Amino acid sequence: MDDLKRFVEQDAFARHLGIELLKYGDGRATARLTVGPQHLNSAGTLHGGAIFSLADAAFSAAANSHGVLALSIDASISYFQALQSGTLTAEAREVARNPKLATYLIDVTDGSGALIAHFRGTVYRKSAAIGDVFAP
Amino acid sequence: MDDLKRFVEQDAFARHLGIELLKYGDGRATARLTVGPQHLNSAGTLHGGAIFSLADAAFSAAANSHGVLALSIDASISYFQALQSGTLTAEAREVARNPKLATYLIDVTDGSGALIAHFRGTVYRKSAAIGDVFAP
Amino acid sequence: MDDLKRFVEQDAFARHLGIELLKYGDGRATARLTVGPQHLNSAGTLHGGAIFSLADAAFSAAANSHGVLALSIDASISYFQALQSGTLTAEAREVARNPKLATYLIDVTDGSGALIAHFRGTVYRKSAAIGDVFAP
Amino acid sequence: MDDLKRFVEQDAFARHLGIELLKYGDGRATARLTVGPQHLNSAGTLHGGAIFSLADAAFSAAANSHGVLALSIDASISYFQALQSGTLTAEAREVARNPKLATYLIDVTDGSGALIAHFRGTVYRKSAAIGDVFAP
Repeated sequence: MDDLKRFVEQDAFARHLGIELLKYGDGRATARLTVGPQHLNSAGTLHGGAIFSLADAAFSAAANSHGVLALSIDASISYFQALQSGTLTAEAREVARNPKLATYLIDVTDGSGALIAHFRGTVYRKSAAIGDVFAP
Repeated sequence: MDDLKRFVEQDAFARHLGIELLKYGDGRATARLTVGPQHLNSAGTLHGGAIFSLADAAFSAAANSHGVLALSIDASISYFQALQSGTLTAEAREVARNPKLATYLIDVTDGSGALIAHFRGTVYRKSAAIGDVFAP
Repeated sequence: MDDLKRFVEQDAFARHLGIELLKYGDGRATARLTVGPQHLNSAGTLHGGAIFSLADAAFSAAANSHGVLALSIDASISYFQALQSGTLTAEAREVARNPKLATYLIDVTDGSGALIAHFRGTVYRKSAAIGDVFAP
Repeated sequence: MDDLKRFVEQDAFARHLGIELLKYGDGRATARLTVGPQHLNSAGTLHGGAIFSLADAAFSAAANSHGVLALSIDASISYFQALQSGTLTAEAREVARNPKLATYLIDVTDGSGALIAHFRGTVYRKSAAIGDVFAP
């Protein structure tokens, strides 16, 4: 579990965006983003890439939570609402897993619990352990 | 065309990530990202969210290039290769458009021209013009 | 509600495949398919197109259940298991809807309740009523 | 190549729908469907499941054309136009392949060459050869 914590915390891109991983383990994960001006698009609403990246952070933490290195191969997202501010939460849950492949559904909700976007992602599971990425 | 330039340039999220829009117009757009340490994931490779956001920036510029405000409703991506550095280019082209909906394909390639990811996105076209977002 | 029943029952393609619509209404629908030799692919397992079509039938019934003509614009599916026989059920539920767009998630399960595939689809909602398709 | 021909020809579902495989090999394939009344949906237009299945047939033939058994894991489609009749062609081409995964893009066009739908699919490549499915 230490390796997982270390693995999740060294996600530089999530940190650059201000995404926090609230919890993760056993094929699930929760991530959070408070919308700031740097997350907005040309129309002044939350950028699709920011919503995707939030969902992707939860997806990645959930997929790697078994300790086996998981690489994203396919992901898709549907957006339901434009937002200008607030705090979003992404909740990932595993719906299928075999030794080589696993799939996750991620709900992105706003502070009131309204569904903002739905994400589905599939990973390829390598034979390496996530701890191997820290090897010197 | 001035409105489009202003619209594209005020994408704060793209700027936060270091994404540059090289050209756009007539349903097409090209965007570029030079990979830095802030774009990496826990495994030390380019984050899926960063690749998606680069493709999304080209998608958005292409979709809004007709001067009609376009909102992303569905997007999907397949990743083909893990990268640690280099410069990526995303090229968007329009494959379908009617007054209400339009769809774009985006190829993401590395410096050698190898395909790194493929993105497809659909927008809903509002009745507003993109210039309306600058209205006081 | 009569229009909806008539609308759902005249789905010739679903009938050609042996897909039954068990119930539908209020943004939800359930469809069923008993696997026969005509549904198998070259490897002797249930064809991806058959699984997709089953999910699509539930998606379409749910999306049209409000009485407004709904056209599929984007759909995606992830497959989790190969099957050679048995009865599959597809359950569609609406996760977002505004006057112009709506999105549905469809779980496809086998007789034991195991998840076989997950489908997400988005429709564009026309201004026509579904009853209009029966107009002479 | 004999194994591939035999493999493609024993696709019972494609045959049930009237889908013809015109050519296949080297990561590419072309399939064709002439629209009949059994392919229509409740609105009297070509069913999304029929368009998907046509694209899927080309996808499967292209993905299995290297002689290694390929299983579909993720697929997505965007529809651009409703049709009531005519002949559709699906052309699949490989855009990425490694020993375990491969991805294909499929254009579905009508008789005039207009793009009707765009499909992207990813397969997991097993260690079995396609000829193994004929083993007694």
